[in-house]
Amino acid sequence: MTIDTAEQGLVSALVQAQIAASQDEVPVGAIVVRSGLVVGVGYNRREQLNNPVAHAEILAIQDAASNLSSWRLIDCILYCTLEPCPMCLAACQQARVKEVIFGAMDTKGGALSLGYRLNEDFRTHHRFEAKYLETPSCSQILKEFFEKKRHTK
Amino acid sequence: MTIDTAEQGLVSALVQAQIAASQDEVPVGAIVVRSGLVVGVGYNRREQLNNPVAHAEILAIQDAASNLSSWRLIDCILYCTLEPCPMCLAACQQARVKEVIFGAMDTKGGALSLGYRLNEDFRTHHRFEAKYLETPSCSQILKEFFEKKRHTK
Repeated sequence: MTIDTAEQGLVSALVQAQIAASQDEVPVGAIVVRSGLVVGVGYNRREQLNNPVAHAEILAIQDAASNLSSWRLIDCILYCTLEPCPMCLAACQQARVKEVIFGAMDTKGGALSLGYRLNEDFRTHHRFEAKYLETPSCSQILKEFFEKKRHTK
Repeated sequence: MTIDTAEQGLVSALVQAQIAASQDEVPVGAIVVRSGLVVGVGYNRREQLNNPVAHAEILAIQDAASNLSSWRLIDCILYCTLEPCPMCLAACQQARVKEVIFGAMDTKGGALSLGYRLNEDFRTHHRFEAKYLETPSCSQILKEFFEKKRHTK
């Protein structure tokens, strides 16, 4: 299956988020795509790996770099269900991704929402676009996860 | 050996940077200390691991989280030879470190130097101090590394 549209990219990232939810992790998913092919995938695994950096985006970037045998993810698009936090947006910059597209805003923790527009900083070594493409299923899965958590408590 | 002073912490981080240099990686090192004990170490391994996030700080954080079996590095101090980039400073925030102390400024790529003072952002879930403690050996090792690179070319 190739990823030909941004919508398809976000649907594939959402599949990763669903895996996270099934493992009782905050459901955020990400994929890395090059020339329409998925070259890396990741879902949030912070709790199960006891790893503070095991966000979906970081794991997808590492997976892609491993698969491509290069830390430079040239011409790669990262799709993620949630707006990246500053760590993850900066990781996209470190990895030289071409573009980031996310399906839900994170007004409290998202890098862009907080004003850390690293991707546009002309002083840095790499700039790229980070776009919000509103995708209700990406926010819905988070809403349902936290509602369920509250009911379980 | 316990780490009783910030100077000792930076010397130990520098040992990590020396390992990086010996492996032809940009020499940056980091350690994580809790109650005077080194609980995590890391040196820059971006090239050898083909991993864009394999900075010294990220690896030290992951090592500490693994050793402590917790992603929350409560009461931990991260010592690093170079001012953390935005990704690494944000990772320290994700990991809830108590403090970051670095031995050399990175005026072009350091998070604080670029004005990304995440660690002081009152809107975020965790705040911590990030201090510069001038340590000439931490900048010297980088200078020598790049001078050697230029001569080899």
